[in-house]
Amino acid sequence: MLKLPGLIDPHVHLREPGATHKEDFDTGTSAALAGGFTIVLAMPNTKPPIFDASTLELALDGAKQKARCDYGQYIGAGPGNAEIAASLAGTAAGLKMYLDSTFGELRLDDMTLWQPHFEKYPKQFPLVAHSESRTMAAAILFSALYDRPIHIAHVSLKEEILLIKAAKEKGIKVTCEVCPHHLFLSKDDIPSPPSPLPEGEGRRGEGRMEVRPRLATKEDVDALWRNMDVIDCFATDHAPHTLAEKDSENPPPGFPGLETALPLLLTTVSESRLTIPDLIAKMHTNPRKIFHLPEQPETWVEVDENAIYEIKASEQFTRCGWTPFEGWKVKGKVRKVVLRGKTAFEDGQILIQAGYGQNVRRS
Amino acid sequence: MLKLPGLIDPHVHLREPGATHKEDFDTGTSAALAGGFTIVLAMPNTKPPIFDASTLELALDGAKQKARCDYGQYIGAGPGNAEIAASLAGTAAGLKMYLDSTFGELRLDDMTLWQPHFEKYPKQFPLVAHSESRTMAAAILFSALYDRPIHIAHVSLKEEILLIKAAKEKGIKVTCEVCPHHLFLSKDDIPSPPSPLPEGEGRRGEGRMEVRPRLATKEDVDALWRNMDVIDCFATDHAPHTLAEKDSENPPPGFPGLETALPLLLTTVSESRLTIPDLIAKMHTNPRKIFHLPEQPETWVEVDENAIYEIKASEQFTRCGWTPFEGWKVKGKVRKVVLRGKTAFEDGQILIQAGYGQNVRRS
Repeated sequence: MLKLPGLIDPHVHLREPGATHKEDFDTGTSAALAGGFTIVLAMPNTKPPIFDASTLELALDGAKQKARCDYGQYIGAGPGNAEIAASLAGTAAGLKMYLDSTFGELRLDDMTLWQPHFEKYPKQFPLVAHSESRTMAAAILFSALYDRPIHIAHVSLKEEILLIKAAKEKGIKVTCEVCPHHLFLSKDDIPSPPSPLPEGEGRRGEGRMEVRPRLATKEDVDALWRNMDVIDCFATDHAPHTLAEKDSENPPPGFPGLETALPLLLTTVSESRLTIPDLIAKMHTNPRKIFHLPEQPETWVEVDENAIYEIKASEQFTRCGWTPFEGWKVKGKVRKVVLRGKTAFEDGQILIQAGYGQNVRRS
Repeated sequence: MLKLPGLIDPHVHLREPGATHKEDFDTGTSAALAGGFTIVLAMPNTKPPIFDASTLELALDGAKQKARCDYGQYIGAGPGNAEIAASLAGTAAGLKMYLDSTFGELRLDDMTLWQPHFEKYPKQFPLVAHSESRTMAAAILFSALYDRPIHIAHVSLKEEILLIKAAKEKGIKVTCEVCPHHLFLSKDDIPSPPSPLPEGEGRRGEGRMEVRPRLATKEDVDALWRNMDVIDCFATDHAPHTLAEKDSENPPPGFPGLETALPLLLTTVSESRLTIPDLIAKMHTNPRKIFHLPEQPETWVEVDENAIYEIKASEQFTRCGWTPFEGWKVKGKVRKVVLRGKTAFEDGQILIQAGYGQNVRRS
């Protein structure tokens, strides 16, 4: 039996408020515990998006009532909320800037709109950028110009990881995270159109493989593995959508990931592609440091390293009801999670009540 | 009568080799002299593009035979020519990197392809980037990471000039140029589709207004004027196409500019929006320094500051036969250009033979 510290996922979408038919703070944090995570940081692109005091309060109220593990809630950067966001830095998980995919209140497509956020958001609180390819390079330049740390979300490309490596070597305060799906899946796993939507086991329709950043080439995947030392954190970017949505005409991008991340990564430990210290660094020590998270006393995860089994959506706690890793054989199972002295999860059962989770910025 | 030093245009397309029906080194350098320029630096996106020793020689042979003013020829950065380009740095005007609009041998759309050029092209020779918006930010980051000067071509946006200002303040070795058409024209000058192609004076069809970077908003134009101290050079991006091409179904982007730049800018001097020292700095002193160009002894331009007249394509030397500034009333006319002791242009006449021009990297 392997004992790990409580894992931290700095990037989850728990769909509350606004899309609780896919997930909410209850099911999302249950999935987190089942996956070995004791802290999750929730993204702000909800409905409504979290971009001011009242929307932040709305999300935190939901979390306070329902969360079963500890949590933080990001505030989103918009074209006109730099001062408000900065004033809320003490109660938010961090500032999330959507620099590529832009929508509504969190639209930031002109770099003149980035500037007030880099200037005003307090340097001691995290700033996370969704920024792909050269937009990521632009975000890193802003980090250098304003001399403040930046964390790059879901790095997926060779050009990205190599540039982050070069920026780190130059002393720029950049950190990054990589999602398991960008380590285990590539473009080659996308069924070629116009394949019929598959029903059989292990096969997935095109819409199910929609995710942002997109699944990349095998060369990109290889570059991530080869530059494992550049990766600060693993983050799931847990982004649940129902199967009906994923199989629809306009499938929304995103995969659930909280319950599959650790088993997938433990499997590569058993194959000597990663080490347990790697896992602890990227899923506990580094995110705790980068996101300034409190220690969780009497908190740990017990893992059966030798359990071999198949991933099954039917055994998951996430409300979305599917996984892109259906049927994958993995080695390593979460047996028990103890959170602040209480057994929160054991042998497939959530044992802790909704509302036990604490806000990492208020405790 | 105002006496100016020989002007330098670091950004022209002279269409040789491959499209000499629009321009060649003869007509292009004649247009340069008529516009007060005694050095032009020619871009490498010709047919074939200039990207190795033999294509560089091809362009330089044409220039040697035909050029009437001094010249340099850029070499283009491609996916596989970083070592070759670096080895030719001593004979090329500089390295041109097309980081946005990509084509053929000069295609560089992945940032992993930027890296060898930044590493290998000698730091004492110029590196010029076509890079717009966040791609420009990425290029500036590369400049910072590789600690080598970069010159940003044809800046047109508020977000660009403000970011360059911030990067300069931080000590990054970035310089930039702005084209007269981005100072004098905006989106508002583009006839709205589906206007019929106009024939009348002073009116221009949509295709004629096609240019890259595109004409920007008035807010962008104002930002360029307000940040005149951030602009190192004026460059024409002289990019002649015939009227038949501009009025075709697929109008190619680009304006001629060599013969209109100085009169347009002198007009703003007469309106006190610019000063003569500004002009000399941005059209002679700064480009000479940035591009490491030799002094041209006994070289000057005589200008009648008080001559008021209308710009007419019919009086131009460029082969393309039109100008986006047709009919504009300007104040300030080039009367005489003396190049290395010889009168090269006087009262509308080119007085110097083809082949008099020298390669700025060989003299």
